[in-house]
Amino acid sequence: MDRITETIIEADASVPVIRMTRDFAATPERLFRAHTDPVLFARWVGPDTTVTRIEHWDARTGGSWRYVSAHDGTEYVFRGCFHEVRPDRIVQTFTFEGDPDGVALETLWFEDLGDGRTRLRTQSLTESFESRDAWLRSGMEVGVDDGYAKLDRMLADDAV
Amino acid sequence: MDRITETIIEADASVPVIRMTRDFAATPERLFRAHTDPVLFARWVGPDTTVTRIEHWDARTGGSWRYVSAHDGTEYVFRGCFHEVRPDRIVQTFTFEGDPDGVALETLWFEDLGDGRTRLRTQSLTESFESRDAWLRSGMEVGVDDGYAKLDRMLADDAV
Repeated sequence: MDRITETIIEADASVPVIRMTRDFAATPERLFRAHTDPVLFARWVGPDTTVTRIEHWDARTGGSWRYVSAHDGTEYVFRGCFHEVRPDRIVQTFTFEGDPDGVALETLWFEDLGDGRTRLRTQSLTESFESRDAWLRSGMEVGVDDGYAKLDRMLADDAV
Repeated sequence: MDRITETIIEADASVPVIRMTRDFAATPERLFRAHTDPVLFARWVGPDTTVTRIEHWDARTGGSWRYVSAHDGTEYVFRGCFHEVRPDRIVQTFTFEGDPDGVALETLWFEDLGDGRTRLRTQSLTESFESRDAWLRSGMEVGVDDGYAKLDRMLADDAV
């Protein structure tokens, strides 16, 4: 099976969804931990130029989360609730507080590739194509690429 | 302004969304309370033929909920998390546990009509048109119509 080492970012043609696919050299358990442990998550999420501080984190079904990413003295706040947290799938809501009425429904799947690697698939559903396309134009790929490269290094260093 | 006393249920043409609109003879505060107080909510939600038992209810931003509706000896379980609860808007996730991987993102707006009446607008966003259309074919309008008629009577009786 081909290895997906660069994140594939796709816009669905018929529904306002962004999908991403990326493989990691880790078991599903380790990748899940990197997404649910707040100390680990804060170390890798987002662009290299930002520092993330977790303000609230309860990564359980029915829990919620909020974090602040600081870049050049400006703070960007994100928050949501965890609809479901289970070993193979996380479903959560996502709001950037700079656009407080915007809400996305995000799903992450951890797919065991059977050789110590895991395929992460994500889906972000918004209420309109305008909202979805604004995300695609926002430069989000910088945060995605930087973040997953940091996560690659943490996994290689056995930091997760 | 025309009064919307029968619920208008609309399927969006371009995104997998169901929208509903209905007016109530109550202030936004009373309608909000009927949606956030678990004892009141359990009295009106769903078809006349069901009895609803709240299993968990924390109607605050970041909280979660779960209830069981019993009909003819069969129990139907629903659950989700509250992304945001504020006086003019509730955003929450929604899963029917009979279809445990299905998740909708629901938004409710309480719009003050300025004469003691309030317009409730709701939006339910699903990840595919297939999921959305399955809801439309499920007989959901019985629960909607029965439920809002019960709520009308509770408001008339000053039970809210």
